[in-house]
Amino acid sequence: MNRPVDRWDLPLGLDAGSEPLFRRISRSIVEEIRRGRLRPGARLPGSRTLANTLRVHRNTVLAAYEELAGEGWTESTPARGTFVSGALPEVRRRAAPAGPSRPAPEAVGFDLRSAAARDACGSGSVAPLLSLGVPDVRLAPVMPLARAFRRVLRDRPEDLLSYGHPQGHPRLRAALAGMLRTARGLAVETDDVLVTSGSQMALELAARTLLKAGDVVAIEHIGYRHAWQVFEQHGATLAPIPVDAAGLDTGALEALTERTALRAVYVTPHHQYPTTATLSAARRIALLELARRKRFAVIEDDYDHEFHYEGRPVLPMASTDRAGIVLYIGSLAKVLAPGVRLGYVTAPRPVLRQMVAHRACIERQGEHTIECAVAELFEQGELQRHARRARRVYHARRDFLVRALRRELGSALSFEPPCGGLTLWATVGDGLDVEAWASRLREQGATLFTARHYAYDGRVRPHFRLGFAPFDERELGTWVRLLKRTLRGASPGG
Amino acid sequence: MNRPVDRWDLPLGLDAGSEPLFRRISRSIVEEIRRGRLRPGARLPGSRTLANTLRVHRNTVLAAYEELAGEGWTESTPARGTFVSGALPEVRRRAAPAGPSRPAPEAVGFDLRSAAARDACGSGSVAPLLSLGVPDVRLAPVMPLARAFRRVLRDRPEDLLSYGHPQGHPRLRAALAGMLRTARGLAVETDDVLVTSGSQMALELAARTLLKAGDVVAIEHIGYRHAWQVFEQHGATLAPIPVDAAGLDTGALEALTERTALRAVYVTPHHQYPTTATLSAARRIALLELARRKRFAVIEDDYDHEFHYEGRPVLPMASTDRAGIVLYIGSLAKVLAPGVRLGYVTAPRPVLRQMVAHRACIERQGEHTIECAVAELFEQGELQRHARRARRVYHARRDFLVRALRRELGSALSFEPPCGGLTLWATVGDGLDVEAWASRLREQGATLFTARHYAYDGRVRPHFRLGFAPFDERELGTWVRLLKRTLRGASPGG
Repeated sequence: MNRPVDRWDLPLGLDAGSEPLFRRISRSIVEEIRRGRLRPGARLPGSRTLANTLRVHRNTVLAAYEELAGEGWTESTPARGTFVSGALPEVRRRAAPAGPSRPAPEAVGFDLRSAAARDACGSGSVAPLLSLGVPDVRLAPVMPLARAFRRVLRDRPEDLLSYGHPQGHPRLRAALAGMLRTARGLAVETDDVLVTSGSQMALELAARTLLKAGDVVAIEHIGYRHAWQVFEQHGATLAPIPVDAAGLDTGALEALTERTALRAVYVTPHHQYPTTATLSAARRIALLELARRKRFAVIEDDYDHEFHYEGRPVLPMASTDRAGIVLYIGSLAKVLAPGVRLGYVTAPRPVLRQMVAHRACIERQGEHTIECAVAELFEQGELQRHARRARRVYHARRDFLVRALRRELGSALSFEPPCGGLTLWATVGDGLDVEAWASRLREQGATLFTARHYAYDGRVRPHFRLGFAPFDERELGTWVRLLKRTLRGASPGG
Repeated sequence: MNRPVDRWDLPLGLDAGSEPLFRRISRSIVEEIRRGRLRPGARLPGSRTLANTLRVHRNTVLAAYEELAGEGWTESTPARGTFVSGALPEVRRRAAPAGPSRPAPEAVGFDLRSAAARDACGSGSVAPLLSLGVPDVRLAPVMPLARAFRRVLRDRPEDLLSYGHPQGHPRLRAALAGMLRTARGLAVETDDVLVTSGSQMALELAARTLLKAGDVVAIEHIGYRHAWQVFEQHGATLAPIPVDAAGLDTGALEALTERTALRAVYVTPHHQYPTTATLSAARRIALLELARRKRFAVIEDDYDHEFHYEGRPVLPMASTDRAGIVLYIGSLAKVLAPGVRLGYVTAPRPVLRQMVAHRACIERQGEHTIECAVAELFEQGELQRHARRARRVYHARRDFLVRALRRELGSALSFEPPCGGLTLWATVGDGLDVEAWASRLREQGATLFTARHYAYDGRVRPHFRLGFAPFDERELGTWVRLLKRTLRGASPGG
């Protein structure tokens, strides 16, 4: 969209030269038109404005504009102003500088390493619509957030708008510490909490603090690729450990530690990503004991803690960490909205101090206006009310999806209804080709991520992930019918 | 401040055991009190609520509460609820678990590398009040920002609250591209712009994209330490190049390139940080030609472009980059507010693509709600109006400070009135001890950063930096008088 150019001053690079000043100005404007900086239809500044900007006499600018109009570069309308012409004349080489008007877009004048799957962390080309563990942003407390934002800006603008601490605004840290004490069994103070721009940044800071090249990090063999990329970026070697219905196989982990020194293990023990399994109580105790004995760190990523539907609440491993080995990462993405980038970490104090220092190097601080607005939502109880409402909605949607899948897909799918979280992990029946099924779905415009997308070894396994939270029952019904229709393409001979 | 605990569910870790359930609950609550998770005065959940959370009968909870009250752990008021007692009884060891109730705060159960000046990027212990190059946040368009935030949330919530692109919201990128074309001579499109969480992140992404261990980066010998730390963090060796009244000494830079292969140079050519010198036209041409010939990158940090008071506008080096060697970094921190973390980069497309990919690894994306709100401020012309107003105010404050310094401090200081930016670089007269002067100021509660703080070699030089933008004339007068009073401590025998 062409905005009037005169909202901004239009400084021109005036070459030194022997030609009259008005001509140097008009040539400069022609150069900008050729380079694409001034577009057809763009309005040039008024002559007084440009004269002021360039520190020249207004008549000089008028003379330049006259020459431009005479050559067809611009068109003037008395009431409206001077515009770059829609139909541009051929380039006059009289005073145009040699060389291209802008570098070839892909040209780089120095050596650049090849990207090599560099965008594995990126958003990828297609969003896996059916497999996203995202909340329903239609439920998000949008207007309370907007009102809170306005209030904090009105009441404390200087505090929020000046440079702040990289650890995060103390008001949000206090609110988070209170929530972590009360709801998650973590004995933490305000200063034990680091607010990050999303949990991804928390992983980045953990990696910077813990890892050097060659360190070994144990991971769930089917798990969260965005985390793996961060660890590998910092030179770590990843050791995949099998995950089953009780979560990470701590026996296999122990066997690994007998032959390899481990630096850290990365786990999602509450609702394993993506299988939704909860790490059993026995394995939690075993994992903490093993980590204490072998002196490796436990990176506990509790990304969707708020949404637990069945069974007694399960407290994080961090709540029983007496040895100071757990880095506990959480996120407000699922409980508030993914677009609001707020995550948090708590860890032993020397570890947290280093993470804070690293954060300051990457990004001096977070967005304190947003942090304070969200702190208000905590203090008012608004966030908690929203979490309870959302949990009821997601619980109902989970139940609806479970019934619909059983009814419509019968033996084609088997699954454990997830005891929490925003997604379901389904296993396809024998004889069904899960990749072919996903392919048929893609042809219908619906992207599903199969187990292959989450597996460290990239191998095909007969599972896929379904996200149910962002869809109401009507939409869930549509997806289930689509799954059923495309099922035929997944069977041999179908 | 004690918030009622019952705003959050209170999940308790109930140990398996042979004792009656009500006693296991009361012991569990005692444990939480001892660990500090439940504070004196904290209100326990109502019995129905806790029974619901724990999936037990309400009577069981009532029995647990009775035992707690009987032992003195809690106090009940019929109308108000049950609270953790202010005076806690001695610990009963009957069923308390062995070991400390929380790990010693400083205990870390794995090896942690020493921090080694790790917080050099951090905010440091004391803000250099007199030397900050910050805008006056009292002038910031706070209410327009709040209104824009509300509008974008109201109109496009799903777009903004869902996961977005790591390159930044297209609306803000389009607005920035328009500004860069019009006001800075850069022929860029929407997709040529990467929005970052402040310019610090842009430096981090540039370092990740360009640097490997051992690469040499030329820097201004007095300059921006936060950038140096980022380069060193990525394994670069820094080569300081002298800066004089015409900016970076490109002759010295060329001499360096004769004996060392350079990977990049980091410059602040518009208003050199912190000396405020503008890189001369001749040196700009020389620098670009040298970089093209020797194939090294130019990282141009144009952190306060909007505030230029004298002389013709100077376009960035990026505007004449035909070889594809300039990474151009800007920031909205000075024109909007430092607390709003928005910076931007434009670079040759293959370079930008890698920077975007790295950004996604660190932080999946920026804060799109804020990005869109700021885009609105661009589109409405509000940001431009604010920039013009602020420039007039800062220009007047600069003039006031210049007059006041000349009048009050006479020959004790010499300086060039800065042609732009938010700070002034002063040289102290012969025989004056600049460090002693700063020391006297610190005793008066005012922190001034001398040249030593900005010098790569850390050596004492007879200069200091004064920030004038955030102070009105009354406040500037106060600072100048303070400088005069403490001057006596800076002279020999004073």
